Amino acid sequence: MESSIFTKIINREIPGYIIDENDDFIAFLDVFPLAKGHTLVIPKKQVDYIFDVESTTYQGLWNFAQQVAKKIEKAIPCKRIGVAVIGLEVPHAHIHLIPLQSVEDINFSRPKLKLEKEEFEEVLRTIKFHS
Amino acid sequence: MESSIFTKIINREIPGYIIDENDDFIAFLDVFPLAKGHTLVIPKKQVDYIFDVESTTYQGLWNFAQQVAKKIEKAIPCKRIGVAVIGLEVPHAHIHLIPLQSVEDINFSRPKLKLEKEEFEEVLRTIKFHS
Repeated sequence: MESSIFTKIINREIPGYIIDENDDFIAFLDVFPLAKGHTLVIPKKQVDYIFDVESTTYQGLWNFAQQVAKKIEKAIPCKRIGVAVIGLEVPHAHIHLIPLQSVEDINFSRPKLKLEKEEFEEVLRTIKFHS
Repeated sequence: MESSIFTKIINREIPGYIIDENDDFIAFLDVFPLAKGHTLVIPKKQVDYIFDVESTTYQGLWNFAQQVAKKIEKAIPCKRIGVAVIGLEVPHAHIHLIPLQSVEDINFSRPKLKLEKEEFEEVLRTIKFHS
């Protein structure tokens, strides 16, 4: 199996704005965000479909997502953190955590925000500062 | 706290197209579906925000969602089951499980499907038949 773009971030083959990680999971900013603070949470082991992730890892992944969501919501002004899992594009299960202002904020047909490197770094610093 | 519309479904005060339930969780068809088979999975205990759900229940909820998703995907033709949690409308945490054909299928701004009672019952029968 070829390494997914996410596996390349895990292995530091390509750069990522990493919020948190442990042995099994990693969270980093989505570079095509629907909102500032939009984050991806993934298992380090590459499995395509989230509902195929083995039970212990699946539970650990959602626990990790909960912890990450709490960090984001402390740092980014929003009503709450929304969740989406689609998975038709990158074959590596990933949970989207998206700071929400309205129901329309989870709409992957919308144009993504275009942020500069400095803006991503600022978002990352803000989240880490509140962690 | 006033009973949410979901608590009323749990208590059979209003009818629901119930796919599965146990002591702690219940899954039923969303009556404003984005796709046939669109299902809501909720904890029976009414908590507004999913990331505030207590850890054991939170884990159980996601496990239950995994089991329900496997049932839906056996019954409803789709590429996979997508997940969304928004929670700005009904103050009772709920996971949307949505049979996906494309990335655009998770877009809550889209008009919902209008299904007749008989069509919901047919979807429910199909899912239960494959369970």
